[in-house]
Amino acid sequence: MTFDFSPLLPESTPAPAKRWSGFPEFNFIGGHIDNATVPVDDLRAAVDRALAREGADIATYSLRSGPQGYRPLREYLVQKLKRYSGIDTTADDILLTSGSLQAMDLVNKLLLERGDTVIVEETNYGGTFSKLRAMGVDMVPVPLDAEGMRMDALETVLNDLAAKGIRPKYIFTIATVHNPTGTILPLDRRHRMLELAKQHGVPIFEDECYSDLVWANERPPALRALDDSGMVIHIGTFSKTVGPALRVGYINADWPVLGRLIALKTDAGSPALEQMMLAEYCPDHFDDHVRRCNAVLEGKLDAMIDAVDECFGTTVEFAKPPGGIFLWLKLPEGVTTPQLAAVAGAKGVAVNPGPDWSLEGDADRWIRLCFANPPIETIRKGVARLAEICREEFGVPEISGNIRR
Amino acid sequence: MTFDFSPLLPESTPAPAKRWSGFPEFNFIGGHIDNATVPVDDLRAAVDRALAREGADIATYSLRSGPQGYRPLREYLVQKLKRYSGIDTTADDILLTSGSLQAMDLVNKLLLERGDTVIVEETNYGGTFSKLRAMGVDMVPVPLDAEGMRMDALETVLNDLAAKGIRPKYIFTIATVHNPTGTILPLDRRHRMLELAKQHGVPIFEDECYSDLVWANERPPALRALDDSGMVIHIGTFSKTVGPALRVGYINADWPVLGRLIALKTDAGSPALEQMMLAEYCPDHFDDHVRRCNAVLEGKLDAMIDAVDECFGTTVEFAKPPGGIFLWLKLPEGVTTPQLAAVAGAKGVAVNPGPDWSLEGDADRWIRLCFANPPIETIRKGVARLAEICREEFGVPEISGNIRR
Repeated sequence: MTFDFSPLLPESTPAPAKRWSGFPEFNFIGGHIDNATVPVDDLRAAVDRALAREGADIATYSLRSGPQGYRPLREYLVQKLKRYSGIDTTADDILLTSGSLQAMDLVNKLLLERGDTVIVEETNYGGTFSKLRAMGVDMVPVPLDAEGMRMDALETVLNDLAAKGIRPKYIFTIATVHNPTGTILPLDRRHRMLELAKQHGVPIFEDECYSDLVWANERPPALRALDDSGMVIHIGTFSKTVGPALRVGYINADWPVLGRLIALKTDAGSPALEQMMLAEYCPDHFDDHVRRCNAVLEGKLDAMIDAVDECFGTTVEFAKPPGGIFLWLKLPEGVTTPQLAAVAGAKGVAVNPGPDWSLEGDADRWIRLCFANPPIETIRKGVARLAEICREEFGVPEISGNIRR
Repeated sequence: MTFDFSPLLPESTPAPAKRWSGFPEFNFIGGHIDNATVPVDDLRAAVDRALAREGADIATYSLRSGPQGYRPLREYLVQKLKRYSGIDTTADDILLTSGSLQAMDLVNKLLLERGDTVIVEETNYGGTFSKLRAMGVDMVPVPLDAEGMRMDALETVLNDLAAKGIRPKYIFTIATVHNPTGTILPLDRRHRMLELAKQHGVPIFEDECYSDLVWANERPPALRALDDSGMVIHIGTFSKTVGPALRVGYINADWPVLGRLIALKTDAGSPALEQMMLAEYCPDHFDDHVRRCNAVLEGKLDAMIDAVDECFGTTVEFAKPPGGIFLWLKLPEGVTTPQLAAVAGAKGVAVNPGPDWSLEGDADRWIRLCFANPPIETIRKGVARLAEICREEFGVPEISGNIRR
């Protein structure tokens, strides 16, 4: 007889996973990147050199570097954070994690309890919402415009909360290449956010997950770079530049915070081989690699925009993002994207429906389309199929590929 | 001015980590293994082959294998679990994790809430205790003898709890090469444990962390192999055979449990490179490698026992373990091992004091000495230094190295 675990599970247990059945034919979801840009040969050479020199060290937990992760990679990150994000830091104030998702879980575990309040961009990474909901945390949304989080709205939110006696635990922001809108918060808003945060005693939790992927290869300094009080907790990752399967992320924070995050990281260190490989690979190759990736990604984005223009015509609204791996697209009135996503998903076209990525009132008219992974030809075919499905379900777009249906 | 995070932290926040300052001169703590046995050249060849063939797949989360981890490694584990542990399972019922510690955290997260009760071996892996304490879970200890957990005592504990109306969430057991006693639970006790567990409706949480490290290269079937009801959740790791820095562990459980564990694993998959490397390395090399490791480890254990005999003489009690990487040692009356560990630690000799590893009344007379990592000469010198420190602090051993002090 099968043992029944269900009476033993806490009430809050999430629904079980479904069995994984492979990627869809047209995969416009997930933070996957372009397979062809993975620098396989350079990575092979890098991991081989690292193992030849230090392979025997895998006999000890975290090699010879302690619980914060492989020191040479932390030292490379010190250089990278300075050059890319304007942050002055040291290897002692960096914790390597299993992707930026573990980083996010650790920061949430440190600061949040059921019933707490946080401030988030109204439209946001779906995982931000799902993690916070699972923890029973109240999210107060701040709307965005074409330049990212609106500071007038943030000020109102902070004042309203203060009036209610609520001190939010943090302001979460993806300030540089926001997910999914792609916006980049300008310098003056960054200064203003820090000013408001300081005034209200609310830390900033800054996620630079996508920030290396900017077509112009230039960006404003990170919020952490503009702060000298230690109030910004900064996370980042190599997932979007070298590969998400590697799961190498990091947290940069002042020691009073970082020391506590280390204490909460109960996995005896993140896997070391990726850390060794990246520490060997990045100093010589990362900068050129990222420029190459950005050229490829912008080409794919352009192909997607062309396909959207061709297949959806003027029925959709979007702005070309200055970087990233996704297009955030508004469909015409009458289309509900959860339904569109469900039907399209069943027909091999996977898209993120707006309500998973936004708390806005009209969220169900938006979809997120990731363009980094599929080849250009697949992007074209997939967008065409999506338009076809949308027309069948909702009667729009009436015109597709210049042909009135 | 420095931002003060302390008013924002939940009450239960653990103490911050101390800055890591490197390994001690004589390192008899931590599950490190022997550096010289790490098969560096075979691992280099394996990871290179895997990357040459499938390196571009790191562009997608979890390669092409989904959230349970790299399928070829899960398929190897199916073979290994059959041959080593007697378990019949499939790749679909295995979840790869970042070491067995993440596996343990996931199982605990699935089943436990503050105030719950679990049954544990009275002497146990220190991390078992610390994780459960941090979760506010009550631990009911079952004493061990020379053959592991005592079934008469388990029966009493289960009956007592039932009489109080308490249904424990699991029985945690390291049945094969118990940490730290090294005991291997005989087959008849395994059957009895399953019988008692079934009778009381209590699942078994089986940790086979060290079970490949048996001098005889033979062991009883895992508890999971002897059960056909799905009541055993089984975890294991490559940490003690190939290297802890790799952080590759796994959970094997029936789908109703595994599907829920996958849903709780919020890190978007464990790092893939180690999984690719092990899947390539293990089929050809693992069996021979483990035999070589066991020969080396038994040699180091013998060296440690010789050193203990020479330096501590008859003042200490221990049994030679049939496998593993540690010696569990009882010091004479008058010695308190937390004090010994503190003084020895300050003088470069790191040992685990008993109270971190045991709930027994006389736990503070025991220490755990790990012998796998230090070279034999270091083991000799370190044990001698420990005896010297013990003599200075507690007056015993009076005789050390056949010289009366």
